[in-house]
Amino acid sequence: MPSLPASEIRALCFDVFGTVVDWYGSVQAEVQRLGLPLGANGGGDFALAWRAGYAPAMQDVRSGALPWTDLDGLHRRILDRLLAERGVVLAEAQAAEFNRVWHRLQPWPDSVAGLTRLKQRFTITTLSNGHVALLLNMAKNAGLPWDTVLSAELFGHYKPDPEVYLGAARLLGLRPAQVMMVACHPGDLRAAAACGLRTAHVARPLERGPGGGMEAWQPGEFDVAAEDFVDLARQLGATLEHE
Amino acid sequence: MPSLPASEIRALCFDVFGTVVDWYGSVQAEVQRLGLPLGANGGGDFALAWRAGYAPAMQDVRSGALPWTDLDGLHRRILDRLLAERGVVLAEAQAAEFNRVWHRLQPWPDSVAGLTRLKQRFTITTLSNGHVALLLNMAKNAGLPWDTVLSAELFGHYKPDPEVYLGAARLLGLRPAQVMMVACHPGDLRAAAACGLRTAHVARPLERGPGGGMEAWQPGEFDVAAEDFVDLARQLGATLEHE
Repeated sequence: MPSLPASEIRALCFDVFGTVVDWYGSVQAEVQRLGLPLGANGGGDFALAWRAGYAPAMQDVRSGALPWTDLDGLHRRILDRLLAERGVVLAEAQAAEFNRVWHRLQPWPDSVAGLTRLKQRFTITTLSNGHVALLLNMAKNAGLPWDTVLSAELFGHYKPDPEVYLGAARLLGLRPAQVMMVACHPGDLRAAAACGLRTAHVARPLERGPGGGMEAWQPGEFDVAAEDFVDLARQLGATLEHE
Repeated sequence: MPSLPASEIRALCFDVFGTVVDWYGSVQAEVQRLGLPLGANGGGDFALAWRAGYAPAMQDVRSGALPWTDLDGLHRRILDRLLAERGVVLAEAQAAEFNRVWHRLQPWPDSVAGLTRLKQRFTITTLSNGHVALLLNMAKNAGLPWDTVLSAELFGHYKPDPEVYLGAARLLGLRPAQVMMVACHPGDLRAAAACGLRTAHVARPLERGPGGGMEAWQPGEFDVAAEDFVDLARQLGATLEHE
């Protein structure tokens, strides 16, 4: 990492869905646990469809077609539409429980170990379009050791709007160049870089399931390119005290 | 705690200055460490004067006489006035470092142990008039294991304005009755109770130094009255896994 002044970086902001937790596998497992009749690819196709509704739903907020709506609300709108399209009727309690699967997503195998190392050296926080309550529930459930939870909700804007990245730096009391955005999504990182943040790409080849592929990025486009969070910790010089 | 449905409580919101950390002793120690000529009671009198400027400064924000100003800004205004009154001139770098003592306040001896127990059972967060950056720096420095950091800054209002307590419950995704405010200041707890939060008083008899006394409260006025955070954990049924 010769070009990166790691000593200048004080805080790492993490994208969450896909970067820290495995939404595809978690939704798939929930379809099976609840025995829902949504089983193509064991629920994987439904996970992809649910997630695919997310960007358009945020765009409805961004355009003003919808007032500010948190992710529970957006996920439920998409869920209701997808169930109707498939002619599946769930009892309200079951639909509500299924919608909360986004609070119970499971971390990638390296997430907790990597975050624990990175926390020794940096302030580590979410910077997610998930709302604060969702992120807190997820952290308690999955054992994610955040120093704090920052969310699009605090800024009234969804990523990739610049208000989110600049708002995070402001709340952290840091210049944008002292903050590194960590994500598996190149678009998130490009928007952060446009605000002056440093960037770390983490490969999550299974985000969309086996064979789902990753969005393309250019070699050298980001300050760091890491295989996973443990690799990111190694590259940023963050180790456990006994290592 | 027969009257308190502890099982309903999901999150604990902590006042910080005085409740979690010892501002009197920490400012006193800093006066001595920096060798500042502010030494009555070893710096204790200066700590009291600095803290006494805090409520009027927040009132200037509340009344609109000052625009929103974070605690670094308010502390610095008070500091500059107090130094001028005493005819003490500090170099800018030293004044700035001294002003940051509020980021480096030391916890009471039971704080980390009690919070660690309480975190096993509840979401634990700050709910302080300190800004997010200050609270994060303090947590990293003192080893305070918050799940997240909530601050008056997020609501554009200082405690005891109701926007702070209601805003915290909203961000936590909880009803006010599922949230307990923990503080050593009766006024903070009364304002929280007026918003529907549950309340825990923790005695901090040394907050204003030896013999400084505590603000009065009525027996039974709050849902819980605890000696310290370990006692609070015991009363709320929060223990470590190996206990």
